[in-house]
Amino acid sequence: MKKLAVYPGSFDPLTLGHVDVVHRAARLFDHLILAVAVSVRKDTLFSIKERMAMARSLAATMPNVEAVEFNGLLVDYVRQIGARVIIRGLRAFSDFEYEFQMALTNRKMAPNVEVLFMMPRESYSYISSSVVREIASLGGDTSKFVPSFVHAALKRKFAP
Amino acid sequence: MKKLAVYPGSFDPLTLGHVDVVHRAARLFDHLILAVAVSVRKDTLFSIKERMAMARSLAATMPNVEAVEFNGLLVDYVRQIGARVIIRGLRAFSDFEYEFQMALTNRKMAPNVEVLFMMPRESYSYISSSVVREIASLGGDTSKFVPSFVHAALKRKFAP
Amino acid sequence: MKKLAVYPGSFDPLTLGHVDVVHRAARLFDHLILAVAVSVRKDTLFSIKERMAMARSLAATMPNVEAVEFNGLLVDYVRQIGARVIIRGLRAFSDFEYEFQMALTNRKMAPNVEVLFMMPRESYSYISSSVVREIASLGGDTSKFVPSFVHAALKRKFAP
Amino acid sequence: MKKLAVYPGSFDPLTLGHVDVVHRAARLFDHLILAVAVSVRKDTLFSIKERMAMARSLAATMPNVEAVEFNGLLVDYVRQIGARVIIRGLRAFSDFEYEFQMALTNRKMAPNVEVLFMMPRESYSYISSSVVREIASLGGDTSKFVPSFVHAALKRKFAP
Amino acid sequence: MKKLAVYPGSFDPLTLGHVDVVHRAARLFDHLILAVAVSVRKDTLFSIKERMAMARSLAATMPNVEAVEFNGLLVDYVRQIGARVIIRGLRAFSDFEYEFQMALTNRKMAPNVEVLFMMPRESYSYISSSVVREIASLGGDTSKFVPSFVHAALKRKFAP
Amino acid sequence: MKKLAVYPGSFDPLTLGHVDVVHRAARLFDHLILAVAVSVRKDTLFSIKERMAMARSLAATMPNVEAVEFNGLLVDYVRQIGARVIIRGLRAFSDFEYEFQMALTNRKMAPNVEVLFMMPRESYSYISSSVVREIASLGGDTSKFVPSFVHAALKRKFAP
Repeated sequence: MKKLAVYPGSFDPLTLGHVDVVHRAARLFDHLILAVAVSVRKDTLFSIKERMAMARSLAATMPNVEAVEFNGLLVDYVRQIGARVIIRGLRAFSDFEYEFQMALTNRKMAPNVEVLFMMPRESYSYISSSVVREIASLGGDTSKFVPSFVHAALKRKFAP
Repeated sequence: MKKLAVYPGSFDPLTLGHVDVVHRAARLFDHLILAVAVSVRKDTLFSIKERMAMARSLAATMPNVEAVEFNGLLVDYVRQIGARVIIRGLRAFSDFEYEFQMALTNRKMAPNVEVLFMMPRESYSYISSSVVREIASLGGDTSKFVPSFVHAALKRKFAP
Repeated sequence: MKKLAVYPGSFDPLTLGHVDVVHRAARLFDHLILAVAVSVRKDTLFSIKERMAMARSLAATMPNVEAVEFNGLLVDYVRQIGARVIIRGLRAFSDFEYEFQMALTNRKMAPNVEVLFMMPRESYSYISSSVVREIASLGGDTSKFVPSFVHAALKRKFAP
Repeated sequence: MKKLAVYPGSFDPLTLGHVDVVHRAARLFDHLILAVAVSVRKDTLFSIKERMAMARSLAATMPNVEAVEFNGLLVDYVRQIGARVIIRGLRAFSDFEYEFQMALTNRKMAPNVEVLFMMPRESYSYISSSVVREIASLGGDTSKFVPSFVHAALKRKFAP
Repeated sequence: MKKLAVYPGSFDPLTLGHVDVVHRAARLFDHLILAVAVSVRKDTLFSIKERMAMARSLAATMPNVEAVEFNGLLVDYVRQIGARVIIRGLRAFSDFEYEFQMALTNRKMAPNVEVLFMMPRESYSYISSSVVREIASLGGDTSKFVPSFVHAALKRKFAP
Repeated sequence: MKKLAVYPGSFDPLTLGHVDVVHRAARLFDHLILAVAVSVRKDTLFSIKERMAMARSLAATMPNVEAVEFNGLLVDYVRQIGARVIIRGLRAFSDFEYEFQMALTNRKMAPNVEVLFMMPRESYSYISSSVVREIASLGGDTSKFVPSFVHAALKRKFAP
């Protein structure tokens, strides 16, 4: 199997669901790149600098995971670094459709890159970055949904 | 069964689908709180004052329904008033996923609160507040989708 | 709230997902009837006598739960005992559709009976009786998916 | 069969999936109106003038297709021109739900108008205008997803 | 538009949902063939003779609808009679997937035949032949779900 | 990445969708085992001997693919041969749900085995073994859906 895999996302912020996928993928691949998208569809809560800091905090806990930011099209980045595998977590049906649409679109642009879908632990399957942002913005406790360094960042972000 | 149930939403505006769920829930519970969210994800068409007026108009038609506004996290509000049951209407698949995600998230934060899902009448199952807003904004007639006092409010809101 | 609720099913066999729904419903209602269907669409693995024994084993662990078998249409049974609430667990999308179809059909036949949908714990959300039967038939260990008395029954059923 | 059919959309921009549906519908109906919505929910990338130019470029390739802009509610426009059939392409599940909701809402307002759903070719089934806009905005090549005149328009729009 | 359309099915038995689709399609096409499949996947409750009798009872109520039985592949039958349009009712998500799979498969075998999907009335959207058979087999009243001549046939079939 | 992957199924019969997944997986892994299930839920059209012959015909075309039959639980087989990766093709929503249910169940029984989901080419995404069997049984031409050696086997099986 190709040694290098890319796990891309906006990670705004990183959740325990993302962490679980990273752990699973890191066990299967020699080297895993946690690729943080600079340009995303909507405004992000955290800046690319903040999102990279979170990704690096996670990557630092595993020997074969590296946090890298990328700009532009994912498939261009993946080809540029010579990877052939993209990892995506599938949590739910709405994911499924969007992920498939993107994967088929990417395949048209980069036929040699395969997308492999993994399942996070079922107890993390309902956690999404958008719900985490919503809870934090309403003053709720997000400590059960995100790593502690993200929890701290969310508290700072929404401090009164 | 616990006597108190909460039916939360942004109700922007209240539709006949919401009204149907309120009627069904009011028959099952001693006291039903129609909880109108002050803070919602996106901009609302109607202000919290307007949405509360609509909720009160509906509540006034039933002896055991009360309209209350709440701020912050739903689960915090529910615990604060000592309720153990949240009522949600399930209309369609897209609801299903979002509702389940929120319900599982809420359960993590408030394990003693149960979410009970009810089905509105099938002839109301496709009515959503967002479609109602769209129709009204384009000058369409919403009288088959909302109570008469909401229809009047929509006409005032979009009067030329 | 009406005091009496019915949780119907074929329970072939009872899984930990069913047990979780029973626990949740029993906390909300004064009396919960675990209604075991005699006549089901397909052949069952366990006879009605065996399925009732399992249901009684579960009911015996809670003061307000009773296992009862019923024959014929669910709505006829529910009306006959004067209940107004049917409890159903919603695990997944395929459930969702079938459950809604049945609930809307039942409503046409018994407009005063409401179906309330509850969510089992997410770690039980993927367990189905049919998968449990399949695992057991292939000699797999079902002890993580069913109560111990069901596990024992499955082992006896598939003993070489 | 009624001779006149309307295929409405925002076409922001027109994709090869839209083109495929137009070709299929034009083979079945005497006259097909490609109805471009002036007022749409969100900001469009292309102005109504630009979207009409694209629609006209497509219509010019077939003898019985006409591009027309419309304002306000779709059903009002359809009734006004005396059409009884609306054509919609169904690509995926998320479409399905939104399309059904709109179709049922439209039916309530215009009971004599039928919506007929068609399937685009499977190799176009994952193409959406929003993904096309995203790819173009990130500097990607959209030539496999849109007609050449749209590809050119996207390049001009996102020229550095 | 092509004058001839085929509405195929096993109609085991015909439901009010089928009747609604027939009415809608008959208003749009010059001639509609209600094509009853002789060979179906599973055992049918009603024989092909009985299913044809039901289809003829319905066809007799409209001047441009004809009940015909067909054997073998649907696309072969459709081509043989020179039709270019197949009508299918879409009720729900599970339909959607199966229908799309069949439609794409048919298209591969008969590229010139288009499948048009129509929506039955929302109050019929949850009625399926299989649920009707189940209710009837349990002694339930099916009169709200099927035409009166089907209701009578079901009563005879399940008479004690 | 672990060198060994297992692609399990009943392959009754092998379709071009399966072939596509095998090709994709064989490019990513050092060794791929096409694992043909002896014991499956329902009666198969082809015997295990016939299904193994098909799987061997496919495996013979690639240097690193091997066809193997297995009995009993998939996870037991996977652990027994020391594999850590199971490959599954995801075609559609109904797949999605069943596959997730099985994957989560398998994970409970074998936490170290990961399921990786791959997408077949979109033009094969609607092909299923059951539809292929149905078409062949009705005398239809399956040559666009299956490899030529399966097409021949289907013709022999359904020869008059």
